[in-house]
Amino acid sequence: MTSIGIDAPRVDGPAKVTGQATYTADIVLPGMLHAKVLRSTLPHARLVRIDVSAAERELGVITLTRDDLAGIDPYYGAVLKDQPVVAIDRVLFAGDVVAVVAAESRDIAEEALDLIEVEYEALPSVGDPFAAQAPGAPILHAERNTPEVQFLDMKSVHFQADSNVCSIYHVAQGDFEAGYAAADHKFDDVYTVPTIQHGHMEPHASTAYWEPGGKLVVHTATQNPSVIRTQLAEMFSLPESMVRVIVPYLGGGYGAKTYPKLEPIVAVLSRKAKRPVSLVLTREEVFMTAVRHAASVRIRTGINNDGQIVARKVEATYDTGAYADIGPRTCKNGGYASGGPYRIEHQDLTSYCVYTNRPPSGAFRGFGVPQVCWPYESQMDDMARRLGVDPVALRRQNLIHEGDTFVTGDKLIAIGLDKCLEEVASAIGWKGIESTRPMPSDKPGFVRGIGIAVMIKSTMTPSNSAASVRLNSDGSATLLTSSVEMGQGPHTALAQIVAETIGLPLNRVTITFPDTDFTPYDQSTSSSRTIFSMGHAAQKAGLQIRDQLLEIAAKQLEASPGDLQIEEGIIAVKGSPDRSLTIPQAFRAHFGTPVGSLFGAFDFQTTGGLRPEDGKGKASAFWFLSAAGAEVEVDTRTGKIRVIKAVTVVDTGKTINPRQCWLQNEGSMLTALGSALQEEMVFDNGQPVNSSFLDYLMPSMEDYPDEFQSMLVETPHPEGPFGAKGMGEAALGPVAPAIGNAVSNALGGIRLRDLPLRPERVLDAIDAAAASGAAASGAAASGAAGAGNGGEAAR
Amino acid sequence: MTSIGIDAPRVDGPAKVTGQATYTADIVLPGMLHAKVLRSTLPHARLVRIDVSAAERELGVITLTRDDLAGIDPYYGAVLKDQPVVAIDRVLFAGDVVAVVAAESRDIAEEALDLIEVEYEALPSVGDPFAAQAPGAPILHAERNTPEVQFLDMKSVHFQADSNVCSIYHVAQGDFEAGYAAADHKFDDVYTVPTIQHGHMEPHASTAYWEPGGKLVVHTATQNPSVIRTQLAEMFSLPESMVRVIVPYLGGGYGAKTYPKLEPIVAVLSRKAKRPVSLVLTREEVFMTAVRHAASVRIRTGINNDGQIVARKVEATYDTGAYADIGPRTCKNGGYASGGPYRIEHQDLTSYCVYTNRPPSGAFRGFGVPQVCWPYESQMDDMARRLGVDPVALRRQNLIHEGDTFVTGDKLIAIGLDKCLEEVASAIGWKGIESTRPMPSDKPGFVRGIGIAVMIKSTMTPSNSAASVRLNSDGSATLLTSSVEMGQGPHTALAQIVAETIGLPLNRVTITFPDTDFTPYDQSTSSSRTIFSMGHAAQKAGLQIRDQLLEIAAKQLEASPGDLQIEEGIIAVKGSPDRSLTIPQAFRAHFGTPVGSLFGAFDFQTTGGLRPEDGKGKASAFWFLSAAGAEVEVDTRTGKIRVIKAVTVVDTGKTINPRQCWLQNEGSMLTALGSALQEEMVFDNGQPVNSSFLDYLMPSMEDYPDEFQSMLVETPHPEGPFGAKGMGEAALGPVAPAIGNAVSNALGGIRLRDLPLRPERVLDAIDAAAASGAAASGAAASGAAGAGNGGEAAR
Repeated sequence: MTSIGIDAPRVDGPAKVTGQATYTADIVLPGMLHAKVLRSTLPHARLVRIDVSAAERELGVITLTRDDLAGIDPYYGAVLKDQPVVAIDRVLFAGDVVAVVAAESRDIAEEALDLIEVEYEALPSVGDPFAAQAPGAPILHAERNTPEVQFLDMKSVHFQADSNVCSIYHVAQGDFEAGYAAADHKFDDVYTVPTIQHGHMEPHASTAYWEPGGKLVVHTATQNPSVIRTQLAEMFSLPESMVRVIVPYLGGGYGAKTYPKLEPIVAVLSRKAKRPVSLVLTREEVFMTAVRHAASVRIRTGINNDGQIVARKVEATYDTGAYADIGPRTCKNGGYASGGPYRIEHQDLTSYCVYTNRPPSGAFRGFGVPQVCWPYESQMDDMARRLGVDPVALRRQNLIHEGDTFVTGDKLIAIGLDKCLEEVASAIGWKGIESTRPMPSDKPGFVRGIGIAVMIKSTMTPSNSAASVRLNSDGSATLLTSSVEMGQGPHTALAQIVAETIGLPLNRVTITFPDTDFTPYDQSTSSSRTIFSMGHAAQKAGLQIRDQLLEIAAKQLEASPGDLQIEEGIIAVKGSPDRSLTIPQAFRAHFGTPVGSLFGAFDFQTTGGLRPEDGKGKASAFWFLSAAGAEVEVDTRTGKIRVIKAVTVVDTGKTINPRQCWLQNEGSMLTALGSALQEEMVFDNGQPVNSSFLDYLMPSMEDYPDEFQSMLVETPHPEGPFGAKGMGEAALGPVAPAIGNAVSNALGGIRLRDLPLRPERVLDAIDAAAASGAAASGAAASGAAGAGNGGEAAR
Repeated sequence: MTSIGIDAPRVDGPAKVTGQATYTADIVLPGMLHAKVLRSTLPHARLVRIDVSAAERELGVITLTRDDLAGIDPYYGAVLKDQPVVAIDRVLFAGDVVAVVAAESRDIAEEALDLIEVEYEALPSVGDPFAAQAPGAPILHAERNTPEVQFLDMKSVHFQADSNVCSIYHVAQGDFEAGYAAADHKFDDVYTVPTIQHGHMEPHASTAYWEPGGKLVVHTATQNPSVIRTQLAEMFSLPESMVRVIVPYLGGGYGAKTYPKLEPIVAVLSRKAKRPVSLVLTREEVFMTAVRHAASVRIRTGINNDGQIVARKVEATYDTGAYADIGPRTCKNGGYASGGPYRIEHQDLTSYCVYTNRPPSGAFRGFGVPQVCWPYESQMDDMARRLGVDPVALRRQNLIHEGDTFVTGDKLIAIGLDKCLEEVASAIGWKGIESTRPMPSDKPGFVRGIGIAVMIKSTMTPSNSAASVRLNSDGSATLLTSSVEMGQGPHTALAQIVAETIGLPLNRVTITFPDTDFTPYDQSTSSSRTIFSMGHAAQKAGLQIRDQLLEIAAKQLEASPGDLQIEEGIIAVKGSPDRSLTIPQAFRAHFGTPVGSLFGAFDFQTTGGLRPEDGKGKASAFWFLSAAGAEVEVDTRTGKIRVIKAVTVVDTGKTINPRQCWLQNEGSMLTALGSALQEEMVFDNGQPVNSSFLDYLMPSMEDYPDEFQSMLVETPHPEGPFGAKGMGEAALGPVAPAIGNAVSNALGGIRLRDLPLRPERVLDAIDAAAASGAAASGAAASGAAGAGNGGEAAR
């Protein structure tokens, strides 16, 4: 193969390094107005009165309030339509959209916000899922719409009415209670992760206008243009062909740009303004628009003296914020993956998606899984320590393998997790049980440790990706796809797949940007599904073109199609390179003149879904499998942790572009490193207080490990193009527990259960362990609240 | 049928009547520069020196001259690459491109033109094809490139070297000399038409920029984006997929916007400027950019006393101006159609395409045929008058019919010309030979007359149109096509074809604008080929989707696909409307979830072409057939002609949208009325002198006939969608001879042979006839020079 498995240079490179790449906020349309949003100052309140007359009168701006929603369905949402374009009766979080102003300039719009009078009646608010479930808590969505499952298979999720629990997912096998009771050792811990930010460089941005013929056109920074089209078509009761969604380069998404964000606002406001309206958020507003679910996970595990894990019960409670967004599915995905990639006879897994008066939580790289991987991989090391065994060996003993049945009932295929585990152990320098002990540091007061972790994660299933390939008569080809180039490299990797499939030089293949007028349906550029799903569709579409070329050439060359090959755009009889045809010659042979188009098109639907009665069925078209290793240095005087070395291993199925996979893993590692050590959105009385990159501590190059190693394991998947599976977010999940395990090993078994591993928490844990003398026993309590923490449950 | 044959409202209507439709000149890109062209002041000169340093220094503009052409092929052209981006060694007409300036504003660019110093060495010039062929005439393209036939079948055209004759086409059957010698009556006349202007409202406009990745993007007012892409790819040695051509609404084309015009200029200049460059022509420049071929046509016809035409020889000499453009093909098309739609045993038809020092002539609605229809239909009436027979009856006697073999060898099918003739005669009130006599007018000094004419014309053959249709899961569909909406209504009519084919409500189908990144190959939006060729492709693509829907529904409804119907988006068992499926339901049945895309794609290639040795083969995929009638009033004191009533009849094959066909016929009629009575580009010593709408007399509403009638005849064509043939330009050709015949009848047989029929020419003809007493005999000489004019040749 000439185009697969090579470090093809990124086709978006030149535009980006020269600063010329166009993003949504760069789009300037004639007559375009600039919008600003007036946001709620309270986390929960009744909207008594809103008066925009002064703003309109004094500054001539155009406003959008609840009074401008006639004739449309003002509610949208990925799963439940519970989020209004602008607040109607209440505001549900500090930052909720109360009104929007469009003006000739951003400055005027900003000024106009000050002239809008709003009267609130403050209501009691709930700041976490447990408070939200307490008796007497205010119900945020008492009259929530009936669940509408638009395109995701949400059957397995149980939606709750008249409660702040938005949805529940549950799956089980065996008999947890019996298995747990009979186990030699019992562990019952609560782990938490806080609300964090995606940290995409490009803020949310959307621009909309209406064509005189009634078509709505939206340029928007979204990861799923097809979904935005559907949602807007439903909002305005339009055929989907009358909504056009265009996506230029996306400056990072990480899940934050899935499902409607600003698009409903600019669509409704431009309809009123009869001019294009652009809305670009400030960083502070980005923090109010999409966040990652905070979660609290209680995990109970029974394990026998022989190292066999026999029973596990997980109750994962996710804070989905003020609106459902894709929360129910995030929580479902975290739910069934919460038992980890292990053969466990008795399992009982439940996840809760709970409304609170916080910014809406949505998709985030890892999609619900990092929240549960942190507990199960931390507890794994605690169990190994308790049993006195090598945690790598303990994992090896319990790991899932090819052909196993997952808790959801999925028959597992293309499972190379054991290889990931061996690779990571080797790369991080794992030396068996010896590695669970603190390593000396050169620097006084510092200790070092290494740790590893593994992960399993599903991909969005069922899902749909359609690709259309057109071959031009000069032998250049275009893939029409709605996949979004957001830095993860599909413009390069999909070109590699099409080039290899047809037999073209790589530089003859170009990939479109999404434009729903032209490019076909794609469920979403998320869930690391593009290479697997769109790549599959592109390969099948390319094969249709290849077959046509072979058929044409077979006639011309008087050979059978099976005896032909296509390489670098030359169709030749195998072994007889002189009996050949260029693609222009093939077009001439076919059409009579060297013009025209050959087409291939394929819509790839992954099948599956889980039954409502037992949460089982087929959860995932393929599985992400990965491992991470970390070596850390802990300053025992300050509590500061530094990652010295990080290793990630991902089973790619088949690596399309090694360099891009390395970059994906590097990104996953850095994101996870930030959330492991320092990132956390802080709220004070419902108000976010660190909504800026100055105050919110994302990792900088200072935090980059001295050494980073990315490794790729290949366990081909029969449905993946050339065997490829998705891999983009795979490395993220195990990094935090690998760091946590390294820290625990460095500290002689002290376990922290609450992320981030802030210095003061580390110091507190060291102090507590010293006080209780428990460090050596490996059962230090973290500062977290929750039942049963502290290592072995029976204690 | 619910969507075919109905007056569906134009989908481009709202945008256009509200003034919001976007044309190329409306496109504003960040950092865009505005270009102006420095044009030659001489019709022929050597370019001795060009110095842009003062312009660059004093105004900071970016310039394009012959010094900026390194690394590219600077020549372009539809058939022969004989036209440079900017003049290299010589200028070939007054208005030729000498240099181009790009500046921050048009004003600065205009000012910069004055600072460019150019030194010419004047060369002798040739102003008409006969002067160009005279001994000693300067040869304009002595080192012309070898003929390159890129996508048109130009085999039958003989390209000449070292001569100003660019190309010759010849076809013959029988033995003209023998047939002519034996004929009872011989007619030998020369007819002329002058250079005229297309008169599109929107001037030529193009904007180009280069993406950092090396892709050239051009927004341009063109009728054939696929051809522009090919030409630019060749110019810059790029894969076609690295050239993107986007066409918004086009404000009229009429052929003027086929093949490269401004695109090479803005592409090369933006490459140098590294910024977008926009060039929008002034009206005066439009007159220098594309014109219709002037022609001089000698037509010799032998006819027997029984009315049988037995021999015809035509020598049509076209003035193609300074560059070939599509001239060789225009002249070829005029050439083989120059014998008219008649059964004539002996024919000898030749057309000459000749270079002169005039603006380049290119495609113009009618494509070479009005120039020859004017002679053959005028002479027809003269022959009838000579024989004393009804000219309608004479035509009826000689007309081609279904199954006849045309002079090119084409087997004629779908030939409803006889019906056109009868319809037009009836509508204009034809009363046999009585109608060849002057009719009285109420007004003293005025006479009236009626006249009719018929025409046959080919369409571009072979040619290629590809269509791709995508059905969305909500039952809305999009046709991806590179057909250009230039006012002729394809966005409406193609939607009708797709809607009818699949079985969708018309308002659920949308049509894309051309964007070669997304939309497939289409040879050209010209030659009235869109409904036939793109319509055929769209229908076939739609049928693929229909078949998929029927197959899906057949499984669901437990019926055979043949027992199902699709109407208004509902798939139902015929006769059992309760056993039905909506399209979203069909998607759900097929994909498991109601998402995704169904595809259809088809590339329709018409086959044919003419052999080089005898000019025969298959000239046309279908034939345009039409008739026109006119009633005129002539003011014998001023010579002014007014058309009182006009009638056009066109054989549409099958009428997709009657109202749009009416509008097409109305446009054809008005264009022809202008060229018949008043339009003419005037040159003084090689300089155009009436290059403005003030000086160049296009018809206004004042000239609109009191009565206009458009009639449609339907003779279905087996390859046309629902039987439809093209019809857009069909009505144009016969209008001028119908007017000429009406004038001749009004004046008792006085024949004018030179267009336009200006008042002074009419007066001169009346005076000459009075002087010679020839009016009554129907053989008045026109003022034209040329051999043998004056009715019967033997005289």
